[in-house]
Amino acid sequence: MNFTQKIEESFAAQSMMKTIGATLDSVELGQIIIRSPLLETTKQQHGIAHAAVPFAIGDSAAGYSALTMLPLEQEILTAEMKINLLAPAKGEYLLATGEVVRAGKRLIIVRASVVAIEGKQQQEVAILQGTMIPISTT
Amino acid sequence: MNFTQKIEESFAAQSMMKTIGATLDSVELGQIIIRSPLLETTKQQHGIAHAAVPFAIGDSAAGYSALTMLPLEQEILTAEMKINLLAPAKGEYLLATGEVVRAGKRLIIVRASVVAIEGKQQQEVAILQGTMIPISTT
Amino acid sequence: MNFTQKIEESFAAQSMMKTIGATLDSVELGQIIIRSPLLETTKQQHGIAHAAVPFAIGDSAAGYSALTMLPLEQEILTAEMKINLLAPAKGEYLLATGEVVRAGKRLIIVRASVVAIEGKQQQEVAILQGTMIPISTT
Amino acid sequence: MNFTQKIEESFAAQSMMKTIGATLDSVELGQIIIRSPLLETTKQQHGIAHAAVPFAIGDSAAGYSALTMLPLEQEILTAEMKINLLAPAKGEYLLATGEVVRAGKRLIIVRASVVAIEGKQQQEVAILQGTMIPISTT
Repeated sequence: MNFTQKIEESFAAQSMMKTIGATLDSVELGQIIIRSPLLETTKQQHGIAHAAVPFAIGDSAAGYSALTMLPLEQEILTAEMKINLLAPAKGEYLLATGEVVRAGKRLIIVRASVVAIEGKQQQEVAILQGTMIPISTT
Repeated sequence: MNFTQKIEESFAAQSMMKTIGATLDSVELGQIIIRSPLLETTKQQHGIAHAAVPFAIGDSAAGYSALTMLPLEQEILTAEMKINLLAPAKGEYLLATGEVVRAGKRLIIVRASVVAIEGKQQQEVAILQGTMIPISTT
Repeated sequence: MNFTQKIEESFAAQSMMKTIGATLDSVELGQIIIRSPLLETTKQQHGIAHAAVPFAIGDSAAGYSALTMLPLEQEILTAEMKINLLAPAKGEYLLATGEVVRAGKRLIIVRASVVAIEGKQQQEVAILQGTMIPISTT
Repeated sequence: MNFTQKIEESFAAQSMMKTIGATLDSVELGQIIIRSPLLETTKQQHGIAHAAVPFAIGDSAAGYSALTMLPLEQEILTAEMKINLLAPAKGEYLLATGEVVRAGKRLIIVRASVVAIEGKQQQEVAILQGTMIPISTT
């Protein structure tokens, strides 16, 4: 098994990703892209995506980017994450790109950017910066 | 209409809250409590709630606490939110308590605490600190 | 040596604390208070304390609160810290109270509040929430 | 007066920048670079720069980058700032590059990166992400 297979299996096991309609768009060493449509079921009261949607896909993309740096038997947990919301999350779908800023032995610092796509236009709607912590599952 | 009715209507209009099974537990001036069960549909790959669940209810509880401080014709958006995850979100349900730290004219600083309840035991699983921005809807 | 002595020695070794005029006001298990005057040498361009002053004393108070939870041979580093500035830092002096939210084996989650004192009045000027990481010095 | 002059004057008026030995290295639209030596007077207890130093120059670089986007009669305040510390701040000097992520009417989202320079080597020691708020001075 390589890290791509590991991440695909892990992603498939995240019921939250299914619930918000998210799919894994790209898996590379240190960078993951997750896509999510703007569902009727994940809105806030003004009709745009709830802040938890860009958070969920940004956090997951960042977390999986960290996972690509680890031995296959390790897993990852979010220790903390900060999100700045730049613009309303509306359009056809969202794309979250997560990447590793620094992979230390004990902590992995990550960031993510979430853009909203509408036809040929795209707008950055959120940026995230946070810390992942490796955990052993054996 | 008072702020309790306004918040109840607004909460009912948030499809995301329905999707994660969240309900409004308490509405007071400057403090809101939201409850959310641990659903099969909102987990991450290790079987605990995805970080987006404590984020979603913590952020919403904090945002509505800010809304209680505003004139009825105003609404609120999250400008930024930071979450520290303290322990795995597992148990019967989660309770997020959001409150206002400082209500300025242009920004409202908020925080939230999320606890997991299992029988008679409770454990704090996340703390949030962020900024809400009032918006006019008229 | 106990943790109070350890923290007093450590604080005395921090030239930054001397530079901003900070002193250790109180050392208790899980809670530290640091005091800092509003010096002519630590202002920003509008004549109030630079954001780095509440950050410096808030971060140090939070870090030392974490240190009270550790064996004497361990030290602490800030992994990340978030500060929300609530009001201009002006008055006679600032008081930062740092405390432990959760002391895990690998990470210690902390928070701090900074208040400005002017005569009998006090105003909260900043809140901080962050993560400390224990390090071995031997 | 143009924004470069305005920022140079403002920087010169910040006594905190003088105290930590910081100088303005580069001023461009949307991007500011601030340099700071590693002084004996700004250390923490382990002999590296106190976290408040990368915070101070990162926050100031980010804030001035926001200021370049505003009319000359406006000023800026930090609403909130989050810093992740990636590596110990040691070497000959630090360089903080601040830039605007999104300049909205009411809030300006910024980020900064701080690198430590030692001879021909450089290492990123901190990343910051935060929010600036424009204020009128007239």
